[in-house]
Amino acid sequence: MNAPERLPKPYLVRTAVDDILAALDEGDAVPPERELAVRFGVSRETVRQALHELLVEGRIERRGRGTVVSRPKLVQPLSLRSYTEGAAERGRVPGRIPVTCADIPATPEMAEALSIPTGDTVIHLERVLLADGQRIGLESTHLPKSRFGTFTESFDPATSLYAAVRATGVEFGSAVERIETALPSPREASLLESTTAMPMLLLRRTSVDTAGRPIEMVRALYRGDRVAFETHLT
Amino acid sequence: MNAPERLPKPYLVRTAVDDILAALDEGDAVPPERELAVRFGVSRETVRQALHELLVEGRIERRGRGTVVSRPKLVQPLSLRSYTEGAAERGRVPGRIPVTCADIPATPEMAEALSIPTGDTVIHLERVLLADGQRIGLESTHLPKSRFGTFTESFDPATSLYAAVRATGVEFGSAVERIETALPSPREASLLESTTAMPMLLLRRTSVDTAGRPIEMVRALYRGDRVAFETHLT
Repeated sequence: MNAPERLPKPYLVRTAVDDILAALDEGDAVPPERELAVRFGVSRETVRQALHELLVEGRIERRGRGTVVSRPKLVQPLSLRSYTEGAAERGRVPGRIPVTCADIPATPEMAEALSIPTGDTVIHLERVLLADGQRIGLESTHLPKSRFGTFTESFDPATSLYAAVRATGVEFGSAVERIETALPSPREASLLESTTAMPMLLLRRTSVDTAGRPIEMVRALYRGDRVAFETHLT
Repeated sequence: MNAPERLPKPYLVRTAVDDILAALDEGDAVPPERELAVRFGVSRETVRQALHELLVEGRIERRGRGTVVSRPKLVQPLSLRSYTEGAAERGRVPGRIPVTCADIPATPEMAEALSIPTGDTVIHLERVLLADGQRIGLESTHLPKSRFGTFTESFDPATSLYAAVRATGVEFGSAVERIETALPSPREASLLESTTAMPMLLLRRTSVDTAGRPIEMVRALYRGDRVAFETHLT
């Protein structure tokens, strides 16, 4: 085992920039790269790296030609509740932009998750998730048409799907959720107003009702710079 | 709401490559970029993008000059149990490489998490986590010296910390865990044998014992191409 190492220059620069940001408020301008390089006596490349890390972490963001301090990440609880409830609990105004609503034939993966035959009709609902008007996620939900066909005819895709499902008397029982990290495709990046180089949190969920009957298969992509998940383990 | 879009070329190429991979086994060679471009009648750039996505998703990896099919991701349950137990349950042989073991003064963040005064001595234990000999994560644990000082003198950092903590009679009660995505610093990327462009899963955990007394503050970075987290919600 090594003795503690001497702190490398990038680490010191990052710490110094952190201190500067700590004294700023949301929306305040971050000093330009060149100015920071001169102030710390390091190369612009070293400063650029620190700023890139902060961008990916969601501490700062580009606005026009400048860079400003970001709003803190939305911390979503991992729970059976809907995105809407999670966001509202954290004081953010939730919203959704409908992108796709189409009937498609179930792939083998959907068929297995939803306990239906491959090729059976599935309702595909794709929506951009908003928090205080900011795009934070892209949610792709698949529901068995045989079970939810009538219900979706009157469903407004700009509202909470979970609330609408519950209103039909279906109660969410349990879900298996897998969390990974992924880069978005060009289409996904564009819908999220981000870039294909921005790491995303990829959430896959399969939910069943209290009798164990499948309700939905979900694939959701959350902007890594705007969202974190939190869970309480006991 | 739009009608379903026509499938774009990158999506079709990605699906075709997925089909090729589905027919291959772990460690098998992936056909080269040029060959795939000719086979699908698309530009090498389109193929390169699909392969890059698969690399970040951990479906394929570079080996020497070629590219091979990866081992499936290690799916770690989100639970109070240790990394060791989670990995073993999934049939992987867990291991650890000690990197740092040092006494440091508590930062304000550590002090708050561990309920000690700022500047109090904290044991910093940093280890690379292995699964079947592959580097999958970098775990940085902070323990209050006043509570665990004696215990760590005899602790072998290549073994399970949780098992050793429990052996002293301390029982883990609960933990708050936050999951984000981040890019590694050059030092972290090097310890994980990865690159600074590879998205990682960043896990922050604070654990307390059954009486609510803080045990540890952890910051762990997991390779996004090798690890996923899973949780069962009820």
